Amino acid sequence: MDNQHHPKSFPFSGEPNQPPYKLASLNAHPGYSTIDLDEISIGGGKVVVVAGPCAIESTGQAMNIAREVKKQGADLFRGGVFKPRTSPYSFQGIGTDGFHILDDIRTETGLKIVSEIMSASQADAMFKHVDVFQVGSRNVQNFDLLKCLGQMQKPVILKRGFATTVEEWLLCAEYILSEGNHQVILCERGIRTFEPYTRNTLDLSAVALLKTLTHLPVMVDPSHATGLRELVIPMAKASVAAGADALMVEVHTDPDAALSDGRQSLYPEQFEQLMYEVNLMAPFRRSQRVVHN
Amino acid sequence: MDNQHHPKSFPFSGEPNQPPYKLASLNAHPGYSTIDLDEISIGGGKVVVVAGPCAIESTGQAMNIAREVKKQGADLFRGGVFKPRTSPYSFQGIGTDGFHILDDIRTETGLKIVSEIMSASQADAMFKHVDVFQVGSRNVQNFDLLKCLGQMQKPVILKRGFATTVEEWLLCAEYILSEGNHQVILCERGIRTFEPYTRNTLDLSAVALLKTLTHLPVMVDPSHATGLRELVIPMAKASVAAGADALMVEVHTDPDAALSDGRQSLYPEQFEQLMYEVNLMAPFRRSQRVVHN
Amino acid sequence: MDNQHHPKSFPFSGEPNQPPYKLASLNAHPGYSTIDLDEISIGGGKVVVVAGPCAIESTGQAMNIAREVKKQGADLFRGGVFKPRTSPYSFQGIGTDGFHILDDIRTETGLKIVSEIMSASQADAMFKHVDVFQVGSRNVQNFDLLKCLGQMQKPVILKRGFATTVEEWLLCAEYILSEGNHQVILCERGIRTFEPYTRNTLDLSAVALLKTLTHLPVMVDPSHATGLRELVIPMAKASVAAGADALMVEVHTDPDAALSDGRQSLYPEQFEQLMYEVNLMAPFRRSQRVVHN
Amino acid sequence: MDNQHHPKSFPFSGEPNQPPYKLASLNAHPGYSTIDLDEISIGGGKVVVVAGPCAIESTGQAMNIAREVKKQGADLFRGGVFKPRTSPYSFQGIGTDGFHILDDIRTETGLKIVSEIMSASQADAMFKHVDVFQVGSRNVQNFDLLKCLGQMQKPVILKRGFATTVEEWLLCAEYILSEGNHQVILCERGIRTFEPYTRNTLDLSAVALLKTLTHLPVMVDPSHATGLRELVIPMAKASVAAGADALMVEVHTDPDAALSDGRQSLYPEQFEQLMYEVNLMAPFRRSQRVVHN
Repeated sequence: MDNQHHPKSFPFSGEPNQPPYKLASLNAHPGYSTIDLDEISIGGGKVVVVAGPCAIESTGQAMNIAREVKKQGADLFRGGVFKPRTSPYSFQGIGTDGFHILDDIRTETGLKIVSEIMSASQADAMFKHVDVFQVGSRNVQNFDLLKCLGQMQKPVILKRGFATTVEEWLLCAEYILSEGNHQVILCERGIRTFEPYTRNTLDLSAVALLKTLTHLPVMVDPSHATGLRELVIPMAKASVAAGADALMVEVHTDPDAALSDGRQSLYPEQFEQLMYEVNLMAPFRRSQRVVHN
Repeated sequence: MDNQHHPKSFPFSGEPNQPPYKLASLNAHPGYSTIDLDEISIGGGKVVVVAGPCAIESTGQAMNIAREVKKQGADLFRGGVFKPRTSPYSFQGIGTDGFHILDDIRTETGLKIVSEIMSASQADAMFKHVDVFQVGSRNVQNFDLLKCLGQMQKPVILKRGFATTVEEWLLCAEYILSEGNHQVILCERGIRTFEPYTRNTLDLSAVALLKTLTHLPVMVDPSHATGLRELVIPMAKASVAAGADALMVEVHTDPDAALSDGRQSLYPEQFEQLMYEVNLMAPFRRSQRVVHN
Repeated sequence: MDNQHHPKSFPFSGEPNQPPYKLASLNAHPGYSTIDLDEISIGGGKVVVVAGPCAIESTGQAMNIAREVKKQGADLFRGGVFKPRTSPYSFQGIGTDGFHILDDIRTETGLKIVSEIMSASQADAMFKHVDVFQVGSRNVQNFDLLKCLGQMQKPVILKRGFATTVEEWLLCAEYILSEGNHQVILCERGIRTFEPYTRNTLDLSAVALLKTLTHLPVMVDPSHATGLRELVIPMAKASVAAGADALMVEVHTDPDAALSDGRQSLYPEQFEQLMYEVNLMAPFRRSQRVVHN
Repeated sequence: MDNQHHPKSFPFSGEPNQPPYKLASLNAHPGYSTIDLDEISIGGGKVVVVAGPCAIESTGQAMNIAREVKKQGADLFRGGVFKPRTSPYSFQGIGTDGFHILDDIRTETGLKIVSEIMSASQADAMFKHVDVFQVGSRNVQNFDLLKCLGQMQKPVILKRGFATTVEEWLLCAEYILSEGNHQVILCERGIRTFEPYTRNTLDLSAVALLKTLTHLPVMVDPSHATGLRELVIPMAKASVAAGADALMVEVHTDPDAALSDGRQSLYPEQFEQLMYEVNLMAPFRRSQRVVHN
């Protein structure tokens, strides 16, 4: 109703039209960037879909899921070999033993590979096995890792932290950009709020806001954001409608047996449904000129 | 990544399949409810749009805006005569002097009238001047007001509180339903979080979640949620994609001179654009059966 | 570490040294106010303690508790006859039947009576049965109620809302003050955050901050804030150390049978312990001049 | 008022009396742990105070501050040589050039040295220059770093993340403990909420709660938590009253010229005042047996 709690002017911590994220700023670039991996163009006209399991558990599990998501039209495969887990006693990922599985998936399906890096010390070993590095929420302000990735010429998906403001997140991207790597994709994955029904609160306003602040492509991960597979399809559609360039979705052929995140993973037939609906609505996501009849 | 912070089972505070909001529960009703006002059906197939200024300021201002939103296809007109303001020194609305303006708008444009009620003591006087009562965020747990509205046979738009969980919000609706008035529309309007760029954080997961929990229609107010007119169109589209049945949007013919909320009010031509884009995408909001080619 | 997220100057929404809460501002008043009820002085030198059950359940229950808290040195008795409950199906208080119980407690024990008002329509009936009106969190921005209480000459305990900023809260107080009633006590009772172990997050920084912003006395309710009786004593002590003028504590002689809030109510012997420890530490709560030995 | 939002039983994500943080649990240890550095015993009877500037800027600046805090009775000196900054364009600390300054301070003043580690790759170089490693909020779930510190035999101050729940935080400690290093001190430093006046919201309930859940010592940093030097003394006192074993406070001889965090740094005379007041109140922080007169 009134503006007590509201930023006075369009909001940066610095000067008007001089956001502190100099290289990430939309002002700094002629139009939106695209990040291209062969024929895939993130930030281009098409909604790019990254899909796969939370964690690589075995060759069979990963390959089965990869085939499914490839069949339904996913562009990239995601699967973690290093898993940041809240508890030290939880499954921590299969580690470097998983690299050959990622290689096999790329070879067989042609899908590009996205996998999470947890530490700068893993970068060299991972480099040739992944096409895109993923930085998880917990590491969004691991500046040592960000600087390391800034010196590599490989795209980075930078997930928003649980409690990172949009400005801080853009400054995290700036850590990578300012080291020379301009291939950063921002991935909204929900923030922490008081609401207990959903795992996090997906902040889709951030997606629309980012399209006014930065030239970098924007991805949404509705799986981690909601934590409930029932909500993944509507939130994927809403993400696209809000202007997202790409989606990251967890899919598992046997979610109930998944070693992590089963509750939020889609069954393959749900993923088929998601791809179908997203494709139907994708043409309408960009602003359309009003046609007066 | 893992489930530490996550509800164990599908989440209610009570027994499985026995949510504490007995009458609002989807289990309690054969399919989704609609709330009908002559030819308008909230929760029916069409996305219903409520539009108008934050506050009624004068006959001229209100009638101009009403004509604009009518022309662009709005279904209901919104305009507050009683304004809950953070400061006692801010404009508090024109009060009962505004009733005849609401009447004139209904008569001239045929639009149904939505206006905010702030206290049970206003109910009798307002009754014949409004078609739908609106309960604002600050009053979502004003149980005295909710019980009063439960005894009236007129639809109620119940906005979510700044910090109301989905379960609590459904129990607020239950206060109205349990008194005998079943015409409740839930309106998501953003929750309070740490993010300062937007006025509130629009919780669109709540929209998709509500469609799994309750039969009541769901509306979204992207104007109050974001506080920035630049974000209203993409968030309106995202709301529809998430499953919203209706939208509430602030429109002003001279936002810069508005007595409240100018920064988030759409210019008329932006509202035209919103209606155009929402109508293009509306057919795809419901789940579509996959067609195998 | 750095100031990105930090207010630039001492923070108000208005001009420097011109906070929007004109009457509540510390600038507006020569020193801190006290609110006096016979020999009790809230905001004076002594820590004033309000104690009693969440809800008045029966004459026996209420009188037993009143005698206990009187014996341990409480200054005021609290007990709700109207109870704002999240669910319409929960116990709603015994209502006006409880007035004579409040009268009896005052007569027998000499304790002043604090009880919650939920609606302006209850004010006249409650007036002679209570010494202090309490406004609950959910009604902190029920402006109709605040204006009504502003026209009464009786102290008001104004609880902070779940998600009310300090500035907004002071403006709620301003609604009462600007109508002519200057006897407002601000009661911090926890805000909503992501932390699930405690019912709310007690914001004791707000207590210290209020002592720099306003002349009004400040109370803390550690029972509602934490929701866990194990934490009430340390949080009561911390409140006093942070500068609180008064405490509000839930006590029950049979918490496990309480109709509401049993989990956070102290047993009488715990309340004795609380009074003992608070009294030991109270002398050190005010800033002490450094003595060089 | 009621328990809708409240954990049903004493709250862990696992089984009753089987918290997931096995080694950190109070059940796992006979009483509270102490962490001893020569004559300093963190978690022992005395409130231990860590003080110093946010960042080491030069020999002169650091040594001046070290002498001041030593004179007033601080036990450990804090000062960062590696600084995690939101922006890559902000001062990043003087780096390894600062090690000799830390050495000089230890030698001259006898104060033990606390300094922040940002990456496992810094551990070996830092090892001999610091007595206690500090892990900052942004790295609380940098599991690579935690595991590394778990393999070192040196105390670790583990700051709570902006949005880390108490359970998650204890599991972060568990990462260190489970690698073999049992010298972990938990440092509460404020969480992110909607309140804009303070930099963060200091969660002192967490301090009292931790004393019921874990044997590890608990420290509080009121400087980062509030961001306002006016609030540091009352919050330091409140921390002690809530049960904190230790305090970490920023002090600067010329805060207005500080390269970071000047607004929250105490002037030396304020630090003197803080030490005086904390010492006065410290005897009353432990629970006292009620003495009946």
